Amino acid sequence: MLIGKVVGTLVATRKAERMEGLKFLVVKQVDIEGRETDDYVIAADVVQAGMGDYVLYARGSSARQTVQTDRRPCDGVVMAVVDTWDVQGEVKYQKE
Amino acid sequence: MLIGKVVGTLVATRKAERMEGLKFLVVKQVDIEGRETDDYVIAADVVQAGMGDYVLYARGSSARQTVQTDRRPCDGVVMAVVDTWDVQGEVKYQKE
Amino acid sequence: MLIGKVVGTLVATRKAERMEGLKFLVVKQVDIEGRETDDYVIAADVVQAGMGDYVLYARGSSARQTVQTDRRPCDGVVMAVVDTWDVQGEVKYQKE
Amino acid sequence: MLIGKVVGTLVATRKAERMEGLKFLVVKQVDIEGRETDDYVIAADVVQAGMGDYVLYARGSSARQTVQTDRRPCDGVVMAVVDTWDVQGEVKYQKE
Amino acid sequence: MLIGKVVGTLVATRKAERMEGLKFLVVKQVDIEGRETDDYVIAADVVQAGMGDYVLYARGSSARQTVQTDRRPCDGVVMAVVDTWDVQGEVKYQKE
Repeated sequence: MLIGKVVGTLVATRKAERMEGLKFLVVKQVDIEGRETDDYVIAADVVQAGMGDYVLYARGSSARQTVQTDRRPCDGVVMAVVDTWDVQGEVKYQKE
Repeated sequence: MLIGKVVGTLVATRKAERMEGLKFLVVKQVDIEGRETDDYVIAADVVQAGMGDYVLYARGSSARQTVQTDRRPCDGVVMAVVDTWDVQGEVKYQKE
Repeated sequence: MLIGKVVGTLVATRKAERMEGLKFLVVKQVDIEGRETDDYVIAADVVQAGMGDYVLYARGSSARQTVQTDRRPCDGVVMAVVDTWDVQGEVKYQKE
Repeated sequence: MLIGKVVGTLVATRKAERMEGLKFLVVKQVDIEGRETDDYVIAADVVQAGMGDYVLYARGSSARQTVQTDRRPCDGVVMAVVDTWDVQGEVKYQKE
Repeated sequence: MLIGKVVGTLVATRKAERMEGLKFLVVKQVDIEGRETDDYVIAADVVQAGMGDYVLYARGSSARQTVQTDRRPCDGVVMAVVDTWDVQGEVKYQKE
């Protein structure tokens, strides 16, 4: 998994039928210092993450291992909201 | 998933038999600002996307999770046409 | 899928038993203008592509979705010979 | 697999239910000389690796091939603690 | 698949139980001219490759399609020893 920051949402009405009912988030990848990078993913949200939340996301077939994304043509999922992480003993992020 | 822009089509007559009947689109990856990048994918179209459409595409095994691509040697699929997305509350794209 | 150009062949006698009988092509990735890049893949050929052919190749588990590559430790397959593709209405390649 | 160095931990309370009970490590990728790179992964720990340990990690569907990660939306796993590796006959790392 | 050169070995005693019995090689990726790159993979060896051998390796789920790696958390496998390859009719490597 990688750490991302939720920065937006995406709406798509015309889509493969198996994609009905999923909410899509625009997630920017962040590095382990918590800085945003230029990489992003459009990910299905299964944890009701909010704008600005730091989240964990999975790619590929692992993104289909949730009840909501099972057997769907979905290769990105936000499957956790991050509370905190540390690097070398230093807290890099702490959810308020 | 990533956001792409449909910029062309590709035709291949001689192909693995399981690939019959699929339409291939040339899709350029775009960043979250909507700018085209140099990355691209040739993706099967399951939503009848049109030239110039902004779309969502999936890669890898997730690209096979549609009725049309099931069990086919296909690692890219356009599975949604994007209506709109926003970043930090700013609309980056709105389909006309 | 990505577009590639067949530039060579590779021979390997000592290999996992499930790899017997596959022909390996050296395939350079090309961009959507048809220019060769530095990226390449060694791919199993299931469409009898020829030297210089522009082809479509798939990576990952999708590369195993052909009769010839099913259940084999093969993560790259040439599954189509390209006839033509266009970008913004301009033909970028036309097979002779 | 790639070689990583455990540099931290990550905590996420709100997560997909199938992710309960996993411990997440912040793992920096290292090159074959043992130098840390800017790439990282948040990986589930199934070998009780410690801070500073050099480890092997797997990505993608392979990350789900452990008892602890089976069928979970997890695309990174630390599945071994490295004792030593050598390159061209020179020992690059030796666990104390 | 990509071409690699075996440059070392890696030993890990503490590992996921399903990883028992596998030999790990340090494999540097080479380009199609046979030049070593900075990319590498730690791959399970199922063909008894030797130091200095040029090999083919597979990544991802394809790396589990051998008797030795089936259902293991292993995302890299050396599944062939390369005898020779050519590019544009020129032999780039010939095993002695």
